[in-house]
Amino acid sequence: MSQKRLDLLKRLALEYQELNGLHIETLNQPSPVEFLRIVRIARPTLIKGFRTPALDKWDDDYLIKQMGDRPVSVAVTPSGNADAIVIGEDGIKYFVEPHIECFTMRELLNHLNPSLGGAEVSSEVYYLQSQNGNLYTAQTECDMSEFDALRMDVSREVSWASEALGISPDAVNLWIGDGRSITSVHSERLYPHARYTREVAGSRLRLMPSPSLTPAVRWSSVINPLDSAELPPEAQPLHIILRPGDTLYLPAGWWHHVRQSGVTIALNWWYDMEARGMGWVWLNFLRGESEEIPDGNDGSVVAL
Amino acid sequence: MSQKRLDLLKRLALEYQELNGLHIETLNQPSPVEFLRIVRIARPTLIKGFRTPALDKWDDDYLIKQMGDRPVSVAVTPSGNADAIVIGEDGIKYFVEPHIECFTMRELLNHLNPSLGGAEVSSEVYYLQSQNGNLYTAQTECDMSEFDALRMDVSREVSWASEALGISPDAVNLWIGDGRSITSVHSERLYPHARYTREVAGSRLRLMPSPSLTPAVRWSSVINPLDSAELPPEAQPLHIILRPGDTLYLPAGWWHHVRQSGVTIALNWWYDMEARGMGWVWLNFLRGESEEIPDGNDGSVVAL
Repeated sequence: MSQKRLDLLKRLALEYQELNGLHIETLNQPSPVEFLRIVRIARPTLIKGFRTPALDKWDDDYLIKQMGDRPVSVAVTPSGNADAIVIGEDGIKYFVEPHIECFTMRELLNHLNPSLGGAEVSSEVYYLQSQNGNLYTAQTECDMSEFDALRMDVSREVSWASEALGISPDAVNLWIGDGRSITSVHSERLYPHARYTREVAGSRLRLMPSPSLTPAVRWSSVINPLDSAELPPEAQPLHIILRPGDTLYLPAGWWHHVRQSGVTIALNWWYDMEARGMGWVWLNFLRGESEEIPDGNDGSVVAL
Repeated sequence: MSQKRLDLLKRLALEYQELNGLHIETLNQPSPVEFLRIVRIARPTLIKGFRTPALDKWDDDYLIKQMGDRPVSVAVTPSGNADAIVIGEDGIKYFVEPHIECFTMRELLNHLNPSLGGAEVSSEVYYLQSQNGNLYTAQTECDMSEFDALRMDVSREVSWASEALGISPDAVNLWIGDGRSITSVHSERLYPHARYTREVAGSRLRLMPSPSLTPAVRWSSVINPLDSAELPPEAQPLHIILRPGDTLYLPAGWWHHVRQSGVTIALNWWYDMEARGMGWVWLNFLRGESEEIPDGNDGSVVAL
């Protein structure tokens, strides 16, 4: 990046920080208008009081009973970094996708709670973490989901968000993981692609670089954002702690890093980004390449 | 401006135009949420169905009766350009403020409708065009306005706008003018300040440069935007025609030029600009000077 562009970006960041500070607003059961005022300024916001039936109904026994023997796709990694930058044995930094294995809900939950289920403690990290609408997609109607048996417990819409934005969620996802599952900082640099793979069933996971024709992946160069030495001095991260029942509104374009404390079940409603106005144009400008249209979302997450 | 910056601004404009086109949305009696979706994308929008008592009650006779002998401040210019760029006798371009004179409502309306009132036809242009809240300001409560006798006919708030934005208007203005009153393109270049002045009562208006200590005024270099040769080729103006009863939402940061066809009474509700988020930061960036905080508004106008 040119020095001029770097200076400009620093100046914009500084001005933004001066005007907005590190303040995190909390909304309690927002009306569509209250929510839309937050969407308009695109600030991450903590939301209290949003309820969906899963919040009251779901515990390990219920999930195991409802899901029965149906297989669910689980991301398996050696140390918890699914969709992350990892240095391969060749010394090259790769964007690595997890190995995907099928388990029953009982197997997954026993692995996450070894003390309860009596399962063997594995050093591998399991994370149910689909991004593609494992509960609902825009074309859900006649579509089967792995989690069909749980759909009745999760509302298709976040009513105040859908009413505010005038659209339905593009995807609704269920995530189940534990304190070792980490979502690394998204996005913004190109990395060669790799995937964790087992050479034979039961063998150790290995990082396998993908064929050279696989497109490189845009991802963050910050591997551990909790190490402040890795962040540029201008970065002023916002820290938000979600407790059971809390909801986070995370606007499009915000780099984010997610950690969980203990076994955590989260629901995510993804709303498509607004294409009109200057929002996309500015996001393109910040990315430094105005030819591409970024994929973005106005999402929100519920931690149970 | 540097060529690089110019190229960047052209690219941003082109992308914006590709994404947004020349489309002008029309809302009919918008709910706060519908209005806020428009505010979020900051596009000028035509609004139908907004009513305030003045719309039904006001005609020349009513205004003259209500206002009686109270003096009102009227901007007087030789050719209709109040608050405009004018070339002085010294060949220098000035930002010229109008001469202000006091008239009764009857005198003003007779001047605008000479056929009705039998007044002498004057070549000078009269425009009742205060920007500072001649009907209401944020501190109106115990304050007298020139138009006190008309306040009951104009609502203090645009209910859907106030509810959407979570604030009350900063200022509410009444404007009365005719087809010769023109609001020139706002804003963005520094000009020396001048004012139309009469040397003696009844004499011809003269452009008087202000003392050199008067701060220069930021204004547009486009004097006649209807002459396409004056506009850069990248400019794609939006044209919006307001008919009696229509309302225009004009977001902060949009250059605008206003003409009237015949005698026109307009009401304007000014809402302060949102300071949070990236809106101000980007506006500063486009202005090319991030040190200053721009004054802006999220305004709306009613033409009666």
